[in-house]
Amino acid sequence: LTKPPPDARAPSGSALIGQGVGAIDTPALVVDLDAMERNLARMVAFARAQGVRLRPHAKMHKSAALARLQMQAGAVGVCVQKTSEAEVLAMGGVDNIFISNEVIAPHKLQRVAKLAAALHSRGGRLAIAVDSLAGVQSLAQAMGMGQELIDVFVELDVGHGRCGVTTPEATVALAREIARHPQLRFAGLQAYHGRAQHLRSVQERREAFALVLARVQAACAALQAAGLPAVLVTGAGTGTFALEAASGVYGELQAGSFLFMDADYARNEADPAQPSFEHALFVKTQVMSVCATHAVCDAGHKSHAIDSGLPLVLGAALEYGNGGDEHGLLRATRPDARLPALGDVLWLIPGHCDPTVNLHDVLIGVRGGLEHGVVEQLIRVDARGALT
Amino acid sequence: LTKPPPDARAPSGSALIGQGVGAIDTPALVVDLDAMERNLARMVAFARAQGVRLRPHAKMHKSAALARLQMQAGAVGVCVQKTSEAEVLAMGGVDNIFISNEVIAPHKLQRVAKLAAALHSRGGRLAIAVDSLAGVQSLAQAMGMGQELIDVFVELDVGHGRCGVTTPEATVALAREIARHPQLRFAGLQAYHGRAQHLRSVQERREAFALVLARVQAACAALQAAGLPAVLVTGAGTGTFALEAASGVYGELQAGSFLFMDADYARNEADPAQPSFEHALFVKTQVMSVCATHAVCDAGHKSHAIDSGLPLVLGAALEYGNGGDEHGLLRATRPDARLPALGDVLWLIPGHCDPTVNLHDVLIGVRGGLEHGVVEQLIRVDARGALT
Repeated sequence: LTKPPPDARAPSGSALIGQGVGAIDTPALVVDLDAMERNLARMVAFARAQGVRLRPHAKMHKSAALARLQMQAGAVGVCVQKTSEAEVLAMGGVDNIFISNEVIAPHKLQRVAKLAAALHSRGGRLAIAVDSLAGVQSLAQAMGMGQELIDVFVELDVGHGRCGVTTPEATVALAREIARHPQLRFAGLQAYHGRAQHLRSVQERREAFALVLARVQAACAALQAAGLPAVLVTGAGTGTFALEAASGVYGELQAGSFLFMDADYARNEADPAQPSFEHALFVKTQVMSVCATHAVCDAGHKSHAIDSGLPLVLGAALEYGNGGDEHGLLRATRPDARLPALGDVLWLIPGHCDPTVNLHDVLIGVRGGLEHGVVEQLIRVDARGALT
Repeated sequence: LTKPPPDARAPSGSALIGQGVGAIDTPALVVDLDAMERNLARMVAFARAQGVRLRPHAKMHKSAALARLQMQAGAVGVCVQKTSEAEVLAMGGVDNIFISNEVIAPHKLQRVAKLAAALHSRGGRLAIAVDSLAGVQSLAQAMGMGQELIDVFVELDVGHGRCGVTTPEATVALAREIARHPQLRFAGLQAYHGRAQHLRSVQERREAFALVLARVQAACAALQAAGLPAVLVTGAGTGTFALEAASGVYGELQAGSFLFMDADYARNEADPAQPSFEHALFVKTQVMSVCATHAVCDAGHKSHAIDSGLPLVLGAALEYGNGGDEHGLLRATRPDARLPALGDVLWLIPGHCDPTVNLHDVLIGVRGGLEHGVVEQLIRVDARGALT
């Protein structure tokens, strides 16, 4: 296999630091650094005021530089979903990482053990979630014979219907199993309801969270009765975090998308208890074909994920239609709106941050706005494609 | 920016050549080389028997090694959609490339010109599509003052409703403009109907193609009358190529997906005029959580694209449900079917090849089947993320 030289990839979404926004080739993924920093400051201030820890989900940005920025601003660490994401971020200087997901394969658990030791030796910490006795046992086996080498959270299914145990009895059984192994530290509960984040009305999200809270409280009560109290309950996303923060039960928030804000989260009715966030992630695109009925831009679903809906067009009376991997179809949303001309530049707001970021090698960080700004930073998407 | 060392990425879907299939970490994208080679042989034999050229779309596999394999088997070259894809494949030794898409930005056209010269100097050839007078003029300006340095195809909109000119008059106007510039060679017509590929019944596809053919014939007649005959009509995909081949008008087939065959193309009613193709692309995945109602595997839509539907589960009475970026939800499709156990391996057939391949750095080529086979080749996805 011949690996193409590094500059073979340079044309894709590349720009030079110091160049104006106009020089960014299309399509490219651009971060409005001013908006991003305001979003981060608002979230940090919120968590501080509520007296809860902030551990943003780094599966959103996949960048060691942004994880470090979040920790410098006050986050205690970050979450990831995969062992390889944790490895890549650790290599990029991130010392406190929670794999908020189950890891089962023995060879992956060997990597988890190696990473836990490496972070520990740097004064950091690795944590992981479990939802099966077999999972705890395999983890303990991989971790070897040290003392409390890794924090282990029992994952509860709090309504999402994916991973996690469903009863207080199973929660206690797993906590007991963790406690049997001196190399593991029972750290508490992982309790995240993904679908609740995207319920549109505040009322729906409150109702969903009431059920989440009841399950968490039942688990906590059972653990207390068993003499294995949960040290920490961790969870929450950008749609519900104010509810977790006010619950008196959650001690840590895992929201990630607030940093970039996507079109899907913007469809939620705003919760007055939450700070508001600005869109900070955009796909720069150019019109490459025009006809009487529509224009075509050079960004299709190879440039942005469409699992949570198509992108919005920033500041234009245009609707984006799916034109395949490499094209977007732009149609006027009002009879008096004009279609863009050949060569025009447009800015798309992606439907879903996380998988959109995963399609790009670099986030182009712009200072001073999308119209007259300058490229200040090229943020490498370190964990792009980190699947295992 | 610190680039992680190369082996930071090695864990993702990696395997060593010579290892058994069981050693492939999950999730990973795996190619059944035997099935792929049978698919290629069938397509080459079909094109030869029909007397048409084969120019597979390399946006499907994004690999220079597979493009070269196709050309060694008899393809005249490959198509791509983006300038950067053409650059990466050219760097990987592919000499005959058609950018079957419009390129508008002057700085991109400079790259096109450079690439055309490089391929020409190697005895190869670059081609491109146009659908506007401004596009032809910008291309001519970038190409400079040589003679017939690039083949230029006028793209027709033959029913897809995306790019392309819509009238015979506009076709002739563009051909005339191309002919005015000695550095360009008017090579014929690009005529591809993407949506027609996925019409489910043979009858629907035939009806759609009748309209395609009428538009192509009208364009050809107008060009003939204007003294600018189309040397070649090129187009077709895996859903309709037997129709283009039998038309007497198309001289070149651009089908790409036949090589890997995805779940979406397999939903088409088989056309008896086409050879049949086997699934050759799979996501290997492992069960990481189980409960009474479902199992959860470690492949979500970060492992496979879902724009054309969710993946199928190979050889199991299981339905795959969307569990987000990193998870798949597996439910039994029959009351008597058993859910898989923790740690079990499953094979998914992705809904859509092209964007699935774009999520991976490497295709793991297996010889001898998915059960007992051996890793024979690691095929780099050279043009992954090549957006510009």
